[in-house]
Amino acid sequence: MSGSLPRRLAAELLGTALLVAAVVGSGIMAVRLSPDDVGLQLLQNAWATALALGVLITLLGPVSGAHLNPAVSLGVWWAARGTPGGLTLGGAGAYVGAQLAGGLGGAALANVMFEVPTKLSTTARGGTGQLVGEVVATAGLVALVLALVRTSRTHLAAPAVAAWIGAAVWFTSSTSFANPAVTVGRTVSDTFAGIAPGDAPAFVLAQLLGAAVGLGVVGVLQPRPARPTRDPEPVAIDL
Amino acid sequence: MSGSLPRRLAAELLGTALLVAAVVGSGIMAVRLSPDDVGLQLLQNAWATALALGVLITLLGPVSGAHLNPAVSLGVWWAARGTPGGLTLGGAGAYVGAQLAGGLGGAALANVMFEVPTKLSTTARGGTGQLVGEVVATAGLVALVLALVRTSRTHLAAPAVAAWIGAAVWFTSSTSFANPAVTVGRTVSDTFAGIAPGDAPAFVLAQLLGAAVGLGVVGVLQPRPARPTRDPEPVAIDL
Amino acid sequence: MSGSLPRRLAAELLGTALLVAAVVGSGIMAVRLSPDDVGLQLLQNAWATALALGVLITLLGPVSGAHLNPAVSLGVWWAARGTPGGLTLGGAGAYVGAQLAGGLGGAALANVMFEVPTKLSTTARGGTGQLVGEVVATAGLVALVLALVRTSRTHLAAPAVAAWIGAAVWFTSSTSFANPAVTVGRTVSDTFAGIAPGDAPAFVLAQLLGAAVGLGVVGVLQPRPARPTRDPEPVAIDL
Amino acid sequence: MSGSLPRRLAAELLGTALLVAAVVGSGIMAVRLSPDDVGLQLLQNAWATALALGVLITLLGPVSGAHLNPAVSLGVWWAARGTPGGLTLGGAGAYVGAQLAGGLGGAALANVMFEVPTKLSTTARGGTGQLVGEVVATAGLVALVLALVRTSRTHLAAPAVAAWIGAAVWFTSSTSFANPAVTVGRTVSDTFAGIAPGDAPAFVLAQLLGAAVGLGVVGVLQPRPARPTRDPEPVAIDL
Repeated sequence: MSGSLPRRLAAELLGTALLVAAVVGSGIMAVRLSPDDVGLQLLQNAWATALALGVLITLLGPVSGAHLNPAVSLGVWWAARGTPGGLTLGGAGAYVGAQLAGGLGGAALANVMFEVPTKLSTTARGGTGQLVGEVVATAGLVALVLALVRTSRTHLAAPAVAAWIGAAVWFTSSTSFANPAVTVGRTVSDTFAGIAPGDAPAFVLAQLLGAAVGLGVVGVLQPRPARPTRDPEPVAIDL
Repeated sequence: MSGSLPRRLAAELLGTALLVAAVVGSGIMAVRLSPDDVGLQLLQNAWATALALGVLITLLGPVSGAHLNPAVSLGVWWAARGTPGGLTLGGAGAYVGAQLAGGLGGAALANVMFEVPTKLSTTARGGTGQLVGEVVATAGLVALVLALVRTSRTHLAAPAVAAWIGAAVWFTSSTSFANPAVTVGRTVSDTFAGIAPGDAPAFVLAQLLGAAVGLGVVGVLQPRPARPTRDPEPVAIDL
Repeated sequence: MSGSLPRRLAAELLGTALLVAAVVGSGIMAVRLSPDDVGLQLLQNAWATALALGVLITLLGPVSGAHLNPAVSLGVWWAARGTPGGLTLGGAGAYVGAQLAGGLGGAALANVMFEVPTKLSTTARGGTGQLVGEVVATAGLVALVLALVRTSRTHLAAPAVAAWIGAAVWFTSSTSFANPAVTVGRTVSDTFAGIAPGDAPAFVLAQLLGAAVGLGVVGVLQPRPARPTRDPEPVAIDL
Repeated sequence: MSGSLPRRLAAELLGTALLVAAVVGSGIMAVRLSPDDVGLQLLQNAWATALALGVLITLLGPVSGAHLNPAVSLGVWWAARGTPGGLTLGGAGAYVGAQLAGGLGGAALANVMFEVPTKLSTTARGGTGQLVGEVVATAGLVALVLALVRTSRTHLAAPAVAAWIGAAVWFTSSTSFANPAVTVGRTVSDTFAGIAPGDAPAFVLAQLLGAAVGLGVVGVLQPRPARPTRDPEPVAIDL
């Protein structure tokens, strides 16, 4: 990473905003253009989300690591705790703040583009099955990111993370929020991708539990770096 | 590969479970959201399956080789028999056991996420055309994996295997199970991706026949390594 | 880049023509084959546009940098002004001329392939929301291209730019024209992808504003090259 | 390439067969599963074709160059005529024979998998617009392949060629056959992807004209190798 802390926070804010704008905006477009088939709407939404996420990681990875997700920042902090130069808890907290601000701003940007009001969502989401889905989606995401770091393959983060989310939207019953900042952002658009604020805390808790599961998985699969770190790739992710 | 045997078996179990969860889960989601068009359901299912498979090979390749498929493990064992350090028959058997357990567990996980019971499938599948389809799909898969190993290009396994399965879902009449562990897993979800247990043995036999055909193909096309093995790629597949 | 100026201009003209032919042609095909679902039409259009754009950047990057877009050429000129060997304002102007000619020619080619007349579009597009969408889409595009140049990763331009446009078609309310030459080309086909000539100037102004925003973003995120330029990649983009 | 001539011909035959099986098979599946929307059928067909083509080039590139297309073999022969070690006219002829046999065999394989008779297609295709489409699709394909060879980037052939065909299916009015062997193969399946034998010669002539145009384009854009050939990539294409 080449960024100073303010620049890194700007990158996290901008990236999370564009990610949420992509999720919310493509959801609005999908409902408007394919009103008769919810599955087609979700396919369009998954297409846009996966592609946007891959681009944002490519663009912002060299600046901030492109976490764009509090669950990832906390996982990175935990995995690196005690390592000189690793992300500190304070740094992770600053990342989370930037991500939350970005998430809210991105939803507002999508609302402006599609000329709908920024207001609280009324879409109910929840139930045991969906919360298990959030655990699975977030665990896989955190394990994937940390495993790529530990095997010196962060240049694969953009396509791999995009593919994981693109798949998990379909195979988890919750359509894979998997990101507390995105969850919070999605509370302020009463559209396809929205989530009622009262349902968000359970989603966030499930995501944090998933992050812990992901740390456990990577601890089993990649207990320490598989090899000495090679020449760092340009798309470095902060560990 | 960096993993000890228990870690490798954990990787095979986890990876096969998530693969089957992706296949079964996305099938359930597809039927619920696009009830009027089976082709759209299969497109959604193929999208999720291909992306998940690519991610899992990326994630688990450095640990266990990411076979996630008894047909692949047996093919790898056969191609490497007599090679020092190659997968032994006992090792292949352990891999197969982990894959079968993972397949069943993954279907159960999808059932939990979507709150449907874990019970035997009633979906009939079979006929000469579909069994020929399984031979073709599995032969191509095994030939592809072994050819990448023999040309020192296992770093391409994730996108290439994902693309093969994503295509074969559409162009083989059986929708390309191509994997005995996935076939067994799919017997315990009575949903879109299910297969009645009585129809599974013929599918598995066709897949094993396909693996043999794939070994024959790679024997013709790449009778021995095309060049001395270069610096091993991070996404190594066990030979 | 290996091209002399005439060869570079030929590449820009040809590339922009094929890009517009892909946008317009796939739009016509989509409306003919999926008349009942506009969202499905846009998904087909986004698929073809993203794939074609990625190919054209791969093909033409080594010749001209594959800008294919006046907003990109102006951004590249501005970012490199004062740099020995950088694109001059006159060079950028010549690029823009070739791109505009290509855009018009590409629309005409699509019209010929689908046997529809080349005539002015009557499709009204506009409104504050859509113009904000154009600013967002173009800002992201220009920031992405320049950030890849400044981090010596222009070999990622083809997949990254293709993914950005593929996503932005869905998450910006304007379906992401993001390119003045494409906008002009789309005025001469009265089909799915058309835009009425009277609506084009506002789109172009929004795109130029977006390019300026993109320059500002990259100035914050990547204020100067992150590292000394390495061995130039084959898919070099002119800076 | 590592293959002897018989092995190379086997690769061309097998690869063209699987390509045609993918085109024809996915077309049959699409019509069966999505009978109400021809555009959705074409999207499913394009998905399977592009992914299969990318895999086959990855698999067979090191053996035979993975031309899988008489237009490509003739283009490669012409571009390399007089070069020591280049493909001879006799070699190109042998390639074409293997491709034609593969094309017919692949259609028959798809027919077997889907249990439909192998018989002549009755699907009429033609008209000036579609023939222009074939010229455009084949010109782009041949120019792309030769430009990648001349810039020492044949390792990009798999994704780039797959993306070109995936896009051209949508933006050319003929749905981009772009391959004489595939055209011949598609005459013997009276299904979605078929073409009446009487309409095939005009398609093939347009494809050969397109190959000539592609040679002209690459002659302008890449008149000679841009740099001394580097260490050959594993996915070498025969020049």
